[in-house]
Amino acid sequence: MVELLQEITRPELNRGLEGVVVDSSSLSDIDGDAGRLIYRGYEIEDLATGASFEEVLHLLWHGELPDRDELEAFVEPMAQERPVGDGVLELMAELARQDEDPMAALRTGVSMLSAYDPEPDAEPEDMAAMARDGRRITAKIPTVLAAFDRYRRGEEPIEPRADLGHAENFLYMLTGEEPDEIAAETFDMALTLHADHGLNASTFTTMVIVSTYADVYNAVTGGIGALAGHWHGGANQDVMYTLMDLDESGLDPIEWVEQTLEEGGRIPGWGHRVYNVKDPRAKILEERSALLAESTGETKWHDYTTAVERYLTDEIGLPEKNIAPNVDFYSGSVYYQLGIPIDLYTPIFAMSRVGGWMAHILEYVEDNRLIRPRARYVGPTSQEFVPLEER
Amino acid sequence: MVELLQEITRPELNRGLEGVVVDSSSLSDIDGDAGRLIYRGYEIEDLATGASFEEVLHLLWHGELPDRDELEAFVEPMAQERPVGDGVLELMAELARQDEDPMAALRTGVSMLSAYDPEPDAEPEDMAAMARDGRRITAKIPTVLAAFDRYRRGEEPIEPRADLGHAENFLYMLTGEEPDEIAAETFDMALTLHADHGLNASTFTTMVIVSTYADVYNAVTGGIGALAGHWHGGANQDVMYTLMDLDESGLDPIEWVEQTLEEGGRIPGWGHRVYNVKDPRAKILEERSALLAESTGETKWHDYTTAVERYLTDEIGLPEKNIAPNVDFYSGSVYYQLGIPIDLYTPIFAMSRVGGWMAHILEYVEDNRLIRPRARYVGPTSQEFVPLEER
Repeated sequence: MVELLQEITRPELNRGLEGVVVDSSSLSDIDGDAGRLIYRGYEIEDLATGASFEEVLHLLWHGELPDRDELEAFVEPMAQERPVGDGVLELMAELARQDEDPMAALRTGVSMLSAYDPEPDAEPEDMAAMARDGRRITAKIPTVLAAFDRYRRGEEPIEPRADLGHAENFLYMLTGEEPDEIAAETFDMALTLHADHGLNASTFTTMVIVSTYADVYNAVTGGIGALAGHWHGGANQDVMYTLMDLDESGLDPIEWVEQTLEEGGRIPGWGHRVYNVKDPRAKILEERSALLAESTGETKWHDYTTAVERYLTDEIGLPEKNIAPNVDFYSGSVYYQLGIPIDLYTPIFAMSRVGGWMAHILEYVEDNRLIRPRARYVGPTSQEFVPLEER
Repeated sequence: MVELLQEITRPELNRGLEGVVVDSSSLSDIDGDAGRLIYRGYEIEDLATGASFEEVLHLLWHGELPDRDELEAFVEPMAQERPVGDGVLELMAELARQDEDPMAALRTGVSMLSAYDPEPDAEPEDMAAMARDGRRITAKIPTVLAAFDRYRRGEEPIEPRADLGHAENFLYMLTGEEPDEIAAETFDMALTLHADHGLNASTFTTMVIVSTYADVYNAVTGGIGALAGHWHGGANQDVMYTLMDLDESGLDPIEWVEQTLEEGGRIPGWGHRVYNVKDPRAKILEERSALLAESTGETKWHDYTTAVERYLTDEIGLPEKNIAPNVDFYSGSVYYQLGIPIDLYTPIFAMSRVGGWMAHILEYVEDNRLIRPRARYVGPTSQEFVPLEER
């Protein structure tokens, strides 16, 4: 009995912190068996189809869906925050000349924003200041990213427009043209779908950083860093490259999948650490993919995606093994149909997830506790020191 | 019995992850009761007094203290990596013009370094590439920081010199003059003393970031972000400001402490989450503080520090309550005596701790596991969605 208790209570090695509960949260919850995702109790389907990304930000940051007046009071100052300083634009121009990776460019650009914050000397515990900084960063990320993309295409950046929605304005700054309604709506939905997802690695990174009372610029810069990893962001880019391989093969989608699997290849965008069934976000994006295909007349990307899904479902039976399409399986081709360059898919993820990062940051610091785990020391305990001359 | 077991095995809320073992490590170990700190089994005293910072980096990164040939093969390429691209210098000039905080300037500067990495397309799992990137960043941090400091003083940056040691070269780039032996040795020791300290928040941040297979630039940028928090880096700046308050008061140190405590003030640099006795690093820095005072002839900072320590020890009896001087209590006045601007003390901490970050990064990714804890959802589970028009 004593041994049993000792075994149970002995500090376990929790690699990956899998199953370790580090905080309580009212932000998002996932039912992996039911394929259900909620933000503050609202179904992700309802929010994606019925609310704008700005309404969802208000819900995550302030606890409630806004009414019209609240929404206006929230959106208007955030839209005014979209422009960035000339120094940041010059940085983006230089990073474009250096052919920097877009995710790294976004990281450096966001890090530089703090230098132009008009109220830089807030007390570290000032939560109103943190919320304000978060709103500023969220407003400016699309501007930073669109400027970088235009510079690397040899074009001048386009000034943000305060009269457009967050999603719409980004597509406008990227291309110089106002997107049509289906494109703007779809991108807005994609931002909502990616805004929060529990304590993923980037969200947790931002929490560890603010737990030292470092400011929000530090936290968001670190969150972008974590999201850059190919085990976190990045899978939807792989999906798109896979669909392009399929396209270039000239084969029928079914033939191509059969051949790919036979050769030991894998199809990205399937399976998830949390979901055992089809990701609810994938279902919504699937519908938008169909709409985009219809609206543009270019249906092949949508057709490839659904054909591959049908084959892996009906013929291979992956869902019976709890392996089902995740959000990345449909977001890749949706972004492609929106005309977004493939290597911007992960930075776009950051543009959305900054909403979740800020929500968790504000929730965590309200009852802050420095995050400092332990390592079990397994190295030598007593080494005799020998000076360099005698080594 | 069943209830007891359930109680014990139920996922606990581990706020701050205090006592949660997330990894095994062979890098550093702390005995808080004995006041002992080891790196890979070597006593911190032996390393600080007997080995250079470069030898300690070799020990942390490669597992062993180098012999002469190994040290040369290690130091020479790292010294060649010290210069930074013109774009980074221009960034530092702009950040200096914007009066950016030095720690934020370092974060943005380090983030930008990736754009100039001559081998940017390494596979994420390539550990040799990670080690190489880490060496590059470690070599360049002093250059970035010294350039920023000189620009804000209206001076041009000074090119790094490959013939000087890591510590010596930084002081040279800061002032344009080679430091004397006591100064160079002292700064080298301070770098060794701060290089590693278990899974503190910044080290853990770098581990969470690389656990997604994000590259080392992402991780170190995030680590700097966490270190910027006043619960992590920054206490030695507070100590120095306190000593300056004492100096300006015109009072005898004892009188000043009595008055400060009476007024409810506190003396920073005392007490530590891990040490119950005097921090072994404080003891070493105390000796160096005495040597510096003797060498410069300006003894007051050393005298203030020891007088305050003696009073808090003998009269107030703090050590009997397990509250003793920590490393920050002596590092502040040591850096001050070295002529280092007070707001560079935390960036200097990063210059040293990057050694520990890289060591933990390399140790962790060798058997990588995505770090993704859980939150306990305590929010509403079923909210009826009402469209904006009806709210």
